Amino acid sequence: MAYDQHNHRASIIDGGGKNDLIHLQRFPHLHLASNTPKGRGVVAGAPIPAGTVIDVSPVLILGIVENIEHIEQTQLFNYTYNWPSKNSIGEPRTAQAVVFGLGSMFNHSTEEQNVGWKRDLERRVIVYQALRDIQEGEELCISYGDHLTFVDADGPRSPVIEEGSEVLGRISVEI
Amino acid sequence: MAYDQHNHRASIIDGGGKNDLIHLQRFPHLHLASNTPKGRGVVAGAPIPAGTVIDVSPVLILGIVENIEHIEQTQLFNYTYNWPSKNSIGEPRTAQAVVFGLGSMFNHSTEEQNVGWKRDLERRVIVYQALRDIQEGEELCISYGDHLTFVDADGPRSPVIEEGSEVLGRISVEI
Repeated sequence: MAYDQHNHRASIIDGGGKNDLIHLQRFPHLHLASNTPKGRGVVAGAPIPAGTVIDVSPVLILGIVENIEHIEQTQLFNYTYNWPSKNSIGEPRTAQAVVFGLGSMFNHSTEEQNVGWKRDLERRVIVYQALRDIQEGEELCISYGDHLTFVDADGPRSPVIEEGSEVLGRISVEI
Repeated sequence: MAYDQHNHRASIIDGGGKNDLIHLQRFPHLHLASNTPKGRGVVAGAPIPAGTVIDVSPVLILGIVENIEHIEQTQLFNYTYNWPSKNSIGEPRTAQAVVFGLGSMFNHSTEEQNVGWKRDLERRVIVYQALRDIQEGEELCISYGDHLTFVDADGPRSPVIEEGSEVLGRISVEI
């Protein structure tokens, strides 16, 4: 077991080959709050050190056509993430993914984001990690990057970010 | 903190009133397998005692009309759960919910289910718990109850189950 209960910086297990296993890590002290100013959100229930893996969320990659024809017509569209993909002849396309995990519950903050995220395209998961030390009681916020489907409430918009959150690239991650 | 790291039978925290907080519990030793006979699935990475809370998954309740017109036309429909609801004049309706958590990754088993689930209608979460002692390496399977959208691969279908999984009602739960 590669999980280290003491510092919560576990490695994602990869058995390789046929028995590929991904450790579904989650920081154990997280709360769902129903009444943040932005709606439901996730709050730290204990201090979270920078770099901690907060959640590993599996995704469902939606078809490009079904997304345009259907998902974009529903409230779920506000929850989907861009997902780089290729069409049948190998040309790059942007699909959308539904995130089955806390990735769907983190609110957006342009100025106060404290959680970064990175897509694992091959394994169809997104890994969320603390960008800095987070205090108990702080709301966990990410940057939605190039996928804002609403008016940004708290500041100028970040540059377009295609591959996960830009800020995550600045810290050393252990996954 | 009501979380007990030793037996993982934590209570969901409810601050009551304005600051309602739900502890996003998850059993820490779970793996996502990409290649079960049923597709992606969740596997126990350590023994799980009966009654253990395995996941608390937030849900997004979809509109009845948008579900019929759109979600049912997509692959996402196979992942949604029935969600009891009421229309504008208080008549009972069945909506659908998208589960942002492992509830979307558990495969179905009629005969070998080892995880039960219960909706918390007011707080918009589903709680998943071990129905029996589960061994390391076992796949975690639930009953999809009255919401099978595919041919059941492993046995006769269970009776219609309206409120979470019938089997969960037989065990003592601590939530």
